Amino acid sequence: MTDTILSLAAALADGRTTSLALTEAAIARIEDPEGEGARAFLRFDREAALAQARASDLQRTHGIVPSPLAGIPISVKDLFDVRGQVTTAGSTVLADAPPAEHDAAAIARLRAAGAVIIGRTNMTEFAFSGLGLNPHYGTPANPCDRTRIPGGSSSGAAVSVADGMAVAAIGSDTGGSIRIPAAFCRLAGFKPTQARVPRDGAFPLSWSLDSVGPIARSIACCAIIDAVLAGEEPTAPCEPSLEGLRLVVPRSYLLDGLDACVSEAFDDALDRLAQAGAKIEDRALPILDRIPALNARGGLVTAEAYARHRELLEQAGDRYDPRVRSRIQRGAQQTAAEYIELTRARAALMAETDALTADVDALVLPTVAIVPPRFDALQVDEAYNRINMLVLRNTSAFNFLERPAATVPCCGSACPTGLMIVGIRGQDRRLLAVARAVETAVS
Amino acid sequence: MTDTILSLAAALADGRTTSLALTEAAIARIEDPEGEGARAFLRFDREAALAQARASDLQRTHGIVPSPLAGIPISVKDLFDVRGQVTTAGSTVLADAPPAEHDAAAIARLRAAGAVIIGRTNMTEFAFSGLGLNPHYGTPANPCDRTRIPGGSSSGAAVSVADGMAVAAIGSDTGGSIRIPAAFCRLAGFKPTQARVPRDGAFPLSWSLDSVGPIARSIACCAIIDAVLAGEEPTAPCEPSLEGLRLVVPRSYLLDGLDACVSEAFDDALDRLAQAGAKIEDRALPILDRIPALNARGGLVTAEAYARHRELLEQAGDRYDPRVRSRIQRGAQQTAAEYIELTRARAALMAETDALTADVDALVLPTVAIVPPRFDALQVDEAYNRINMLVLRNTSAFNFLERPAATVPCCGSACPTGLMIVGIRGQDRRLLAVARAVETAVS
Repeated sequence: MTDTILSLAAALADGRTTSLALTEAAIARIEDPEGEGARAFLRFDREAALAQARASDLQRTHGIVPSPLAGIPISVKDLFDVRGQVTTAGSTVLADAPPAEHDAAAIARLRAAGAVIIGRTNMTEFAFSGLGLNPHYGTPANPCDRTRIPGGSSSGAAVSVADGMAVAAIGSDTGGSIRIPAAFCRLAGFKPTQARVPRDGAFPLSWSLDSVGPIARSIACCAIIDAVLAGEEPTAPCEPSLEGLRLVVPRSYLLDGLDACVSEAFDDALDRLAQAGAKIEDRALPILDRIPALNARGGLVTAEAYARHRELLEQAGDRYDPRVRSRIQRGAQQTAAEYIELTRARAALMAETDALTADVDALVLPTVAIVPPRFDALQVDEAYNRINMLVLRNTSAFNFLERPAATVPCCGSACPTGLMIVGIRGQDRRLLAVARAVETAVS
Repeated sequence: MTDTILSLAAALADGRTTSLALTEAAIARIEDPEGEGARAFLRFDREAALAQARASDLQRTHGIVPSPLAGIPISVKDLFDVRGQVTTAGSTVLADAPPAEHDAAAIARLRAAGAVIIGRTNMTEFAFSGLGLNPHYGTPANPCDRTRIPGGSSSGAAVSVADGMAVAAIGSDTGGSIRIPAAFCRLAGFKPTQARVPRDGAFPLSWSLDSVGPIARSIACCAIIDAVLAGEEPTAPCEPSLEGLRLVVPRSYLLDGLDACVSEAFDDALDRLAQAGAKIEDRALPILDRIPALNARGGLVTAEAYARHRELLEQAGDRYDPRVRSRIQRGAQQTAAEYIELTRARAALMAETDALTADVDALVLPTVAIVPPRFDALQVDEAYNRINMLVLRNTSAFNFLERPAATVPCCGSACPTGLMIVGIRGQDRRLLAVARAVETAVS
């Protein structure tokens, strides 16, 4: 199950494998008692998965192959509505909610593309942390080192792919929830420009910032899934030459305090990119240093999460993960004027940053400043909060700036660390093409 | 100066008049010591106006006639930036602000269309009232009865057109600021779908609700100016037959408490429309009755106005009209969660109302529930606040629902009262065509 979507699609087309075989292999990993399946998935129905696979194989014998995803097992984060199932979003609070009446738009598009929806993956409760801990359902351990966290909030999504329980996963990314676990688990991940993929039927964390995207083994896999999610033709983007591509390292707070291992891997990646012909420019972008102060009162996400959760907190606040609850409750302190000013300041910062980077093919920087922490480093709330903010720092900057951003593994490194490639708003396919070329150079 | 833009454009084309003659006639009305010019205009520069007119005539002799507005005197509300002038937005607080470096987008488009910008018109301070009173600069009196208010906030805009000081005017409409003074002064007015006309360089009251549009003698005049403001071909829309047009009277709180005179004029207008072949349907729309409760905490406008004015209030709050200041300061009480919930509830209400009226060509209702109050009825703050809310009630509902809406005079009536025609979001030209047919039937 370490193959890419395109190689599996070819094997399915040639009869070298079947959807049933792929699905059975995934199920074997999910059900392995030594593995992380019990924690990676919040809901898994082996018979339903097998039925989808058999149906896909049956259709294929009659030439019905809707897309390269046809017959491919894909896991979905627990916050997407699946018709007939309860969406709990990693919480116990919603367990009594009525089942969803419709598939989320992303789920419907995956189904229409012929994917096998293999199960619903674990996540930080309500998606509100970058670490991935879930005290209600347990936390799947990092495939690179089981003493370490997987990253989040799409923790189960990344673990399901890394451990061969799915070929790819879909998640959501409000401050890094796709890119962080992808980086921590040596995978590729992609957060699109928000408007690219409809969010209907996805339990919201922040209406302004939530984006829907894939975690997979390669950027080409991510691009195919992204195209399906965006309602476009599901092809991989061309892989441009790196020759002359202008890649900018944004000198700012985003490069502060890197782990030595992350820093070395990043420098190594830049060397490889330069050798491959890219023009690497170190550019001071002090404008980015304004982002932390703008978000010092909790940002758009706490205000919007509080608006969504206010009633639920009154009814069942004691059943929330206290670390999630306290983050959401910060939003109660924000005034309408502060929120409005932040939306205005964000728009201005986006425009100004766009102008300062208009000549750039992509920004490149470490996806996360540090390597995945050990579980035992997060026992104290103070450490949890500090490390959570640091882990989210680099990714969340580009939710705030509303940029498409991909992460690829820095494979030269001994430790799991990602290289983030950040594009121009709305130019998602172009960014994926650049990311594909970067991935080849640094892998 | 009671001619329409199209008849004046024809007269200019035939050499029956000149821009200089039109502009001199407007100036004579502005400078008439018996007239309202001193209160209708906050800034008027006769030499600059004459220079624009002479330049227009000179261009015309060489075939340069950019649009039907070429050479036509147009007044502009004091909140639009005009390069080199200070934008005071009807306040004294901004009098020391630096002059604008650029024309507002609306002004630039009027200039490109060849209009003569004759002067800047008076308004409620910061556009935050539907009555039009301005304690700093005086209030231009209603042309139909000088003991009555002109309506606002675009008070000077309407008076400038009604009194022949301009052929047409541009204003802004956040809760009715174009349609109310147009109705109170027996004129036509049009508030477009917000996104239709760029708001760059217009001093904001509410980023969510502000719209830019015209006040003029007819819907055809409004449509030509609207097209110029929207960057489209400046033509009048066709006038459809009323035969079979589906006009719906929205039974709801919007029809409560009408002045007898307004009610009679409205019934008369419906009779005339039915006689002309329109299908008039009385439709219960209780969904609209949710609007007042949603806005009970001051709505989007107080929160956004407070965000814009917070600093200025600290510096110079004592120089605001106290009635305007107290309305803005209500916004300080709103929390981010309340504001966010309101934006969500608004979106849901828009979608639901759209579905309930998808089969309709237009809604029709009185533009304002009452006839223009006398100045002396507004001396007590309590009366001011109560009457202001009532005057804004019908118009503001369609800012909240983000609909294009026009007003035409109900000319059968002895008192000045308007008939509002409300269209589908984004279908502004279609609404103007329907409004043109309605105007013909009720005039």
